[in-house]
Amino acid sequence: MKLIADNLRITKTMVQAALEVKNPEPLQAIVTACEKNGAMAIDLNTGPLKKNPEKEMAFFIHAVEAVTTLPLMIDTASPAAMRAGLETATNPVMINGFSLEPRKLAQILPLAVQYNADIVGFLLYPDSRVPKGEDQRLDIALELLAQAQRAGLPLERLIIDPVVPPLTWDDGIAQARAVLRVIKILPELFGFPVRTIAGLSNLTSGAGRTPGKNAIEQSYATLLAAAGLEYLLMDVLNDHVRSSAVAADLLLTQEVFSWTGA
Amino acid sequence: MKLIADNLRITKTMVQAALEVKNPEPLQAIVTACEKNGAMAIDLNTGPLKKNPEKEMAFFIHAVEAVTTLPLMIDTASPAAMRAGLETATNPVMINGFSLEPRKLAQILPLAVQYNADIVGFLLYPDSRVPKGEDQRLDIALELLAQAQRAGLPLERLIIDPVVPPLTWDDGIAQARAVLRVIKILPELFGFPVRTIAGLSNLTSGAGRTPGKNAIEQSYATLLAAAGLEYLLMDVLNDHVRSSAVAADLLLTQEVFSWTGA
Repeated sequence: MKLIADNLRITKTMVQAALEVKNPEPLQAIVTACEKNGAMAIDLNTGPLKKNPEKEMAFFIHAVEAVTTLPLMIDTASPAAMRAGLETATNPVMINGFSLEPRKLAQILPLAVQYNADIVGFLLYPDSRVPKGEDQRLDIALELLAQAQRAGLPLERLIIDPVVPPLTWDDGIAQARAVLRVIKILPELFGFPVRTIAGLSNLTSGAGRTPGKNAIEQSYATLLAAAGLEYLLMDVLNDHVRSSAVAADLLLTQEVFSWTGA
Repeated sequence: MKLIADNLRITKTMVQAALEVKNPEPLQAIVTACEKNGAMAIDLNTGPLKKNPEKEMAFFIHAVEAVTTLPLMIDTASPAAMRAGLETATNPVMINGFSLEPRKLAQILPLAVQYNADIVGFLLYPDSRVPKGEDQRLDIALELLAQAQRAGLPLERLIIDPVVPPLTWDDGIAQARAVLRVIKILPELFGFPVRTIAGLSNLTSGAGRTPGKNAIEQSYATLLAAAGLEYLLMDVLNDHVRSSAVAADLLLTQEVFSWTGA
């Protein structure tokens, strides 16, 4: 299981301010810390960048690429900003992402084909509702796969995100278990070793600094690893949760144990 | 997954000293703290109590039963001390435990039948060596089951301990994964929902205060819960690891989530 940093988000005041005055340094400090903490890719959650998608996305990409050669996961719903990211980036790029939403099928999915990039497909209904359970997610996964094939995407470019629910939803805990089963089942359902990604912070969204939040994220990260998850999108600067994710991966996959790797 | 405290051990100087002068208070302080921290049973790791097994075990039992009604897991290799514990205890008792070792088959296993007590069976060779892998553990499990049946033990009294290895063994990590698979497979192999127990501290034995020790125990506790483990024997006073074990159980089994339970 590889860790992708979700730490660079436009929802952080510090990131908004840096964008406003085009100061790359606060973004670079985040990226450098994330890489040092074991991130194998950086999610650039830029939002739609409505003012000037091309110029603002270019600022993000240049700022980040100046300090890292890690793959960049471009995380915006704006096709214009996404295209600008794909045009600008020289690091490997992953598109985050598309769904059955018609606008995304029409305007985001084709970019993955055109730019030969990995792309995340979310298991969401066309109106962006989150499906209730396992069966609904698997139905949507098959439809996403069909759409990706129709668009001419090489299937090894597809990464499925089963959409982790907040535990505070009425059926959040049942859905969280459904997500684990979906991750386990997908490669068999698809007939090839499709990669999966999950966003850990969704699980505890709204929990603030509740005691027990770390423990819940630590255990769920371990369960995701055990289900066979390929990419965990998370706050890699949270040492408690990051250590558990690394430890889980080590316990599940390494041949030789060493305390220096733990 | 229920937590059993392994905190009361004769290897602790404080416990030895309390036994020496027959002062129950230090033992009671440990037990009270463990119960407060969510232990559903207390392991009394008394050692063989060679000087006076009957009297010393009675001291332990009386000391502990004065402050708790939790089940007691009597953890001694001495048949005399074990019998004394079974005679003395009024709380529910679990015997910890027997193996294919001839002395244990002859002198410990029959006590479970005679006193109608739960008993832990270790997946160890007759000479107490730890088996290498999954297949060897399963072979031993079938032999233990046959011995338990031959002795007249009601099968719902049997609890299997697959023996968690130290990760620092050459093949420790492979064995740790074998233990997870054995826990998952046993109920199907036996044809009834046999209960399992595992000792978490064995995994990190020799690690001292190595950084990463908690993370490894947290992840492994979660993987044990996911495998279907019934009883986790652990240091319930380690809040980090305890919280993860509780969180894992909650994520895997609860119907309704609440942050107050996490």
